[in-house]
Amino acid sequence: MRYALVGGKRLRGYLVLESAALFGIAADQALAAAAAVEALHAYSLVHDDLPAMDDDDLRRGRPTVHVKWDEATAILAGDALQTLAFELLTDPALGPAERRLALVRGLALAAGAEGMVLGQALDIAAETTATPLTLAEITALQNGKTGALIRFSAEAGALIAGEDPAPLRAYANALGLAFQIHDDVLDVTGDAALTGKRVGKDKDAGKATFVSLLGLEGAQARARALIDEAEAALAPYGARAGNLIEAARFTITRNA
Amino acid sequence: MRYALVGGKRLRGYLVLESAALFGIAADQALAAAAAVEALHAYSLVHDDLPAMDDDDLRRGRPTVHVKWDEATAILAGDALQTLAFELLTDPALGPAERRLALVRGLALAAGAEGMVLGQALDIAAETTATPLTLAEITALQNGKTGALIRFSAEAGALIAGEDPAPLRAYANALGLAFQIHDDVLDVTGDAALTGKRVGKDKDAGKATFVSLLGLEGAQARARALIDEAEAALAPYGARAGNLIEAARFTITRNA
Repeated sequence: MRYALVGGKRLRGYLVLESAALFGIAADQALAAAAAVEALHAYSLVHDDLPAMDDDDLRRGRPTVHVKWDEATAILAGDALQTLAFELLTDPALGPAERRLALVRGLALAAGAEGMVLGQALDIAAETTATPLTLAEITALQNGKTGALIRFSAEAGALIAGEDPAPLRAYANALGLAFQIHDDVLDVTGDAALTGKRVGKDKDAGKATFVSLLGLEGAQARARALIDEAEAALAPYGARAGNLIEAARFTITRNA
Repeated sequence: MRYALVGGKRLRGYLVLESAALFGIAADQALAAAAAVEALHAYSLVHDDLPAMDDDDLRRGRPTVHVKWDEATAILAGDALQTLAFELLTDPALGPAERRLALVRGLALAAGAEGMVLGQALDIAAETTATPLTLAEITALQNGKTGALIRFSAEAGALIAGEDPAPLRAYANALGLAFQIHDDVLDVTGDAALTGKRVGKDKDAGKATFVSLLGLEGAQARARALIDEAEAALAPYGARAGNLIEAARFTITRNA
C-alpha cells in the first residue's frame, strides 16, 4: 500500500489542499481528505495495471505492484487502499460530522459504478469493439475514468468549508478533460524515462484517443482552451485562486 | 454487482437488522446499513474467488463472477461493491450524521488492512509456507477474515442507536469463530449441491483447518461451546435477543 502511494504528482491531493485554502481552511484541517483522494487514486492505478485490465508493468518509474509482488497482493493492496480512503474521511480534524459525511458521499459517488469504475469498464469494453470510439464517447468515458475524482478533489475544499462548490466544479470539469487530453498527447510525444510509464501503448493498440481524433495540434489547442475555461471559472475567488490556476497550467505542460 | 449480491444467506445483514431491533430501531432505519454489509461481503467474495486468490468457480450455486463474465469485470464489480457499501452508510435514514460516521469508520476498520484484508492476506500467505498454521494462528487469521465483518454487523445496531456495543461485540466474537469452524466442518461433511460452493478444497490442499487441528468431533464441540458463549453474552437484553440467539444456533447447524 505504501509502495503504491509513493512517487506520484499528487495533483489530486494538492487540489484538495488548495481548494480548502481558498476558504481559509488550514492544511492540517484538509490533510486527511488530501490523503484520502491519493489513496483512492493509488487503488485505482494498482487495479488498472493488473494483467486482466491494462496489463502495465511500469508505473511512476517503478515496477507495478503485481510485478513487484504478485497479483493477489496487488488486488488486496488496492482493496485496502480504497478502504483506507474512506477511513481517512472520518478523521475529526476535517470538521463537523455533517461535512465529513458529505466528503464520504462525494468520494463514493466519484469512485463507484457511476463514476471512476464506470469509466474504466467503458475503456476496457472499447478495447474489444471493432468500431473506434467517437469524440463524444471518449469524452464521456474520461469524464468518469479521470474526471470524477479530479472533480471531487477540487470540490473537497468547499465541502470542508461548507461553501458552494459550483465554481470549483466548473474549474475541475475543464481541468479533468484537459488532463486526459494531455495524457494522450504524452502517450505520443512523451518519454518513458520522464513519464515513468510505457508510452505509445494506445497508438500501438489502435485505440481511439483525443490525438487520433483531433490530431496532435488540435488536441493541444483544445487542452489550452479548456485551461482558459478552468481559469475563468475561478474568477469569483480573485487572486486567492493563483495556485489553482498555476496547477491548471501545469496540467498541460507537464512531461510526466 | 447485482449477480454477486443474490443468493446468499444474508446472515450479516440480518445481524444488523436484529441488533438494531434490540434497541427499538425499525427495519427501515437500519436497512441501508444491512445492505452495506452485504455489499461489502459480496465484494470480498468476488475478489477472493479470483484465479489469483482462491480460484473458485462456484459460489452460491452459480458460476463465480469471473467465470460468468471475465476477470476484469470481477475486479471492477468487486471494487464498485466496496464503494457502494460506503455510499449506503451515508443514507439519511440511518439517523444523525455523527452515528452514520461511526458506521463508516467501523466498517472501514473491519474491512481494511487490519481486518478482513489482513485475514485474507494471511490466508494466502499460509498456502505458500511449508509449516501448517497452529490453532492460535488460524484463530487470529479468521478473526480478521470473517470475524471482523460479523463483529461490525452485530455492533451496527448499537452504533445506529447510540448505545454501548460491548455485549454485541462479545456475542459476535464467539459467533464469528463458531461460523468459521462450521465452515471448516462443512468443507469435510458438506455437499456442494447444498453449500453452493466446492467442498473438500482445504483438505485436498493440505491446509490446516479447525477440523485438521481439533478433529471433526472436537471442532463441532468447540463450535457448540462458542454458541453457548454467544448466547450468554446477550443476557443483558433478555427475551428481546431471541432472534439473535436463533441466528447463533443456525450458524452451526446450517448446511450451506
